[in-house]
Amino acid sequence: MTAQTKSNPGNYFEDFSIGMELVHATPQTVTEGDIALYRALTGNRYAQYSSAEFAKAAGLPGLAIDPIHAFHVVFGKSVPDISLNAVANLGYADGRIRRPIMPGDTLNTVSEVIGMKENSNKRTGVVWVRTRGFNQNGIEVMSFVRWVMVNKWEEDAAVPPTHIPDLPDAVPGSELEGFAPMEDWDFSLAGSPYGYEDYEIGEKINHVDGMTVEEAEHQIATRLYQNTAKVHFDAHGQKSSRFGKRLIYGGVVISIARSLAFNGLANAGQVLAINAGTHASPLFAGDTIYAWSEVLDKADLSDKAGALRLRLVAVKDQDPGAFAYKTGDGKYADGVLLDFDYWAAIPKLSGR
Amino acid sequence: MTAQTKSNPGNYFEDFSIGMELVHATPQTVTEGDIALYRALTGNRYAQYSSAEFAKAAGLPGLAIDPIHAFHVVFGKSVPDISLNAVANLGYADGRIRRPIMPGDTLNTVSEVIGMKENSNKRTGVVWVRTRGFNQNGIEVMSFVRWVMVNKWEEDAAVPPTHIPDLPDAVPGSELEGFAPMEDWDFSLAGSPYGYEDYEIGEKINHVDGMTVEEAEHQIATRLYQNTAKVHFDAHGQKSSRFGKRLIYGGVVISIARSLAFNGLANAGQVLAINAGTHASPLFAGDTIYAWSEVLDKADLSDKAGALRLRLVAVKDQDPGAFAYKTGDGKYADGVLLDFDYWAAIPKLSGR
Amino acid sequence: MTAQTKSNPGNYFEDFSIGMELVHATPQTVTEGDIALYRALTGNRYAQYSSAEFAKAAGLPGLAIDPIHAFHVVFGKSVPDISLNAVANLGYADGRIRRPIMPGDTLNTVSEVIGMKENSNKRTGVVWVRTRGFNQNGIEVMSFVRWVMVNKWEEDAAVPPTHIPDLPDAVPGSELEGFAPMEDWDFSLAGSPYGYEDYEIGEKINHVDGMTVEEAEHQIATRLYQNTAKVHFDAHGQKSSRFGKRLIYGGVVISIARSLAFNGLANAGQVLAINAGTHASPLFAGDTIYAWSEVLDKADLSDKAGALRLRLVAVKDQDPGAFAYKTGDGKYADGVLLDFDYWAAIPKLSGR
Repeated sequence: MTAQTKSNPGNYFEDFSIGMELVHATPQTVTEGDIALYRALTGNRYAQYSSAEFAKAAGLPGLAIDPIHAFHVVFGKSVPDISLNAVANLGYADGRIRRPIMPGDTLNTVSEVIGMKENSNKRTGVVWVRTRGFNQNGIEVMSFVRWVMVNKWEEDAAVPPTHIPDLPDAVPGSELEGFAPMEDWDFSLAGSPYGYEDYEIGEKINHVDGMTVEEAEHQIATRLYQNTAKVHFDAHGQKSSRFGKRLIYGGVVISIARSLAFNGLANAGQVLAINAGTHASPLFAGDTIYAWSEVLDKADLSDKAGALRLRLVAVKDQDPGAFAYKTGDGKYADGVLLDFDYWAAIPKLSGR
Repeated sequence: MTAQTKSNPGNYFEDFSIGMELVHATPQTVTEGDIALYRALTGNRYAQYSSAEFAKAAGLPGLAIDPIHAFHVVFGKSVPDISLNAVANLGYADGRIRRPIMPGDTLNTVSEVIGMKENSNKRTGVVWVRTRGFNQNGIEVMSFVRWVMVNKWEEDAAVPPTHIPDLPDAVPGSELEGFAPMEDWDFSLAGSPYGYEDYEIGEKINHVDGMTVEEAEHQIATRLYQNTAKVHFDAHGQKSSRFGKRLIYGGVVISIARSLAFNGLANAGQVLAINAGTHASPLFAGDTIYAWSEVLDKADLSDKAGALRLRLVAVKDQDPGAFAYKTGDGKYADGVLLDFDYWAAIPKLSGR
Repeated sequence: MTAQTKSNPGNYFEDFSIGMELVHATPQTVTEGDIALYRALTGNRYAQYSSAEFAKAAGLPGLAIDPIHAFHVVFGKSVPDISLNAVANLGYADGRIRRPIMPGDTLNTVSEVIGMKENSNKRTGVVWVRTRGFNQNGIEVMSFVRWVMVNKWEEDAAVPPTHIPDLPDAVPGSELEGFAPMEDWDFSLAGSPYGYEDYEIGEKINHVDGMTVEEAEHQIATRLYQNTAKVHFDAHGQKSSRFGKRLIYGGVVISIARSLAFNGLANAGQVLAINAGTHASPLFAGDTIYAWSEVLDKADLSDKAGALRLRLVAVKDQDPGAFAYKTGDGKYADGVLLDFDYWAAIPKLSGR
């Protein structure tokens, strides 16, 4: 028996086929320990994910796992099967957070291949998967589509016909689920007086603060989610890579940018949907993340709550008040790290 | 609508007034996850905050949050409203830990302005606040006074008349509250044979060990307490500051120094009062903290327990056995980081 | 009263005697917070220590503390009394994990001196201790022997006659205890299709992945276990040491290497015995750990489960596929960090 056969080689483009289902290892029970670590690593301050009392007053079952934290966990499971041989993470779409994830819940992840397209160089291809997270009762807690560019094993290998899935630009506001009723909401304790009515479509918000990321921090965070992609951890191996050093997991950028967004969006902490996401440039240890947001849309949820569709832009080592985004030719401006489009619930001021 | 209006600008000197009450965001539920992280970040080994069994034998309800940990949490909440525009944290006084804080408790913070004094340069002023921490039942678990130098918004602004609050040099030993009965106390498990009777007023203790602080460690700790002062996190922004780099939150120094004090004060883990505190010089990543203590006073609590009033001095990159403190002119000696005056409960040897 | 007398000077060779029992401070309650941190610091993905549901299906009481994590905790307690003045940790033997350690359990550690031998230089000696970990009910959860070279206080001091304990090369497979029944085992969720029958004695497994260790990471991990040996924490003091910098605790290497071993041994997560262990060379921050394993032996446990005796070798900054181990003269090859011999339970494929 030869060595190395029992380690996981990951999947190459040829290993995927439309309709294929992948049951991912390792189920993970998320606990109050995970919540404390997520806060300590990201600076999360959204009140319903910080205080059990606040959460209950807002109509949640108690102190829940932040939805973006749960997203990283569900995503992390899929890495060994989907993106171990990925050249690039190309995008997210149609992400839906269906219900609160509570301490003690165990998350499992299953992915289905919904699209494939060989690239013209015949050395790589794009694979689309719909990834679903389930709790210990088999109930779906979230789902999202992502697509990645993966290496082919052999240039000559026969490949299935191109199939590109039809994906929505955004989850429709009418389909948002799992939001807190927000019957009671203490704006003082939440940290901001601004409610649903205060935000206007097109409004941009400068989140002002910056956060520098250290090697130890992104490694600890990425392992918390059991995402083991070696580019994040292996400094010795990365010396011979394109960047010559460890790359920070894009989820670290998402979570820190959203924690910074507290300063201006303190009441909009409950993420309900991920409409799109692009990691525009890589982040390395020692870089400082800043963020700004733009209100893209609004949706009515109930008498007490609405939702904001927000573009969260993370930038590196520059004033977020410059609102850097894209240049004239449609490319991302220098220093843009992340372009993240999501829906979040926010209480209404009316009727209180 | 202009950008940046929804982020918190913090309060300037003119925004405060005597008697003003500030309800601080974000309530925080502290859990066993916080306890594990606090231990891992500080090296805390005091037995009643490490073992549920030891805590119960000592007469506590169970494994409690270390009082200094809780102090950082209550303090952290006040930062966005009190010290976001602070030039300096000038001091603490009259801190009282009134009862054990247990996992599952949710801490809220409210501050009252109790003193104001414009500085002669008319660009800054000193604000005194009494900050109180409450649990989810509205019961006060601690209170303390701190004063900070904050910027004025405008040099010409009218200011209220000077009012300097009357503060005690120390909490009287007779007013100490919330201490464990210490009916049962296993000195072997606690890590030291020395009880109340063994310590003499004037005695100095060299805590011997040193601990070096990394950027990742102080950032993780400071976020654990939801203290978001940007000087601790934003390396890019700090390049143009006086020090050119990130400053470590003073609470990190307090907690690490007190963890080092275990080696010599292992039985004196339950802090009951904070009499005074001065951050004599800044700490930066890569520096090594050492500590020594002096017994300032003793107080009888019961047949089984007493209290020591201790001066905890943290020094940087030097032998704590030199007991560096102040020079002839009353200024702090080079390398002194912290001068922290507190009361801690300690079991008596008699009657066991 | 002179300074420094109340801090712990540790024990020197003369302080030990055969049969002496040492009750170690600080009992530690391990919680879900510890589990989250251990995962985040090591990358642990073994399913029965990640998912409460998986653990229960495997016949464990629930989400347990990883046995190697518990080993570090039990070990950590013994450091202030056994190895504070140690020149070197020489080895481990006869380690037995007797039962699962659950969140909420409080671990106490007691050691007995079972061997002593003065070295010919008369400046140091070797001390063997059997260290036992107990839970809050006084039930032994693990035991192991370790031996350390410690300094003598005085060269001329009289010493007891040499006594070298009789130690097994390995725990016999027939004496393994505390393993999960593994009636139900989902190989997909565990992350590997390979069971007991698939592994052959003599087989080597390349674990492929690498993990770089930062100063903050090893310090946080080592404090999590309350191991306070100053060589791991005091950069200022270490400047004048042989290496000129902080040494990483060997337990960090064990845990990270075993986490890397998931990639090839995903079903063999439950460690039952530690047969031997040598820290062949020191690890420093910035180094990258890789690992490979060799199957040394196999043992039948039940219809559903067997055990593999594994040699886990950690190497530094080199391809683990080269299987570096020892050179012709019996010395460890360059870059070998750890030689760790253990038994782990693994489900059988038959009868499912």
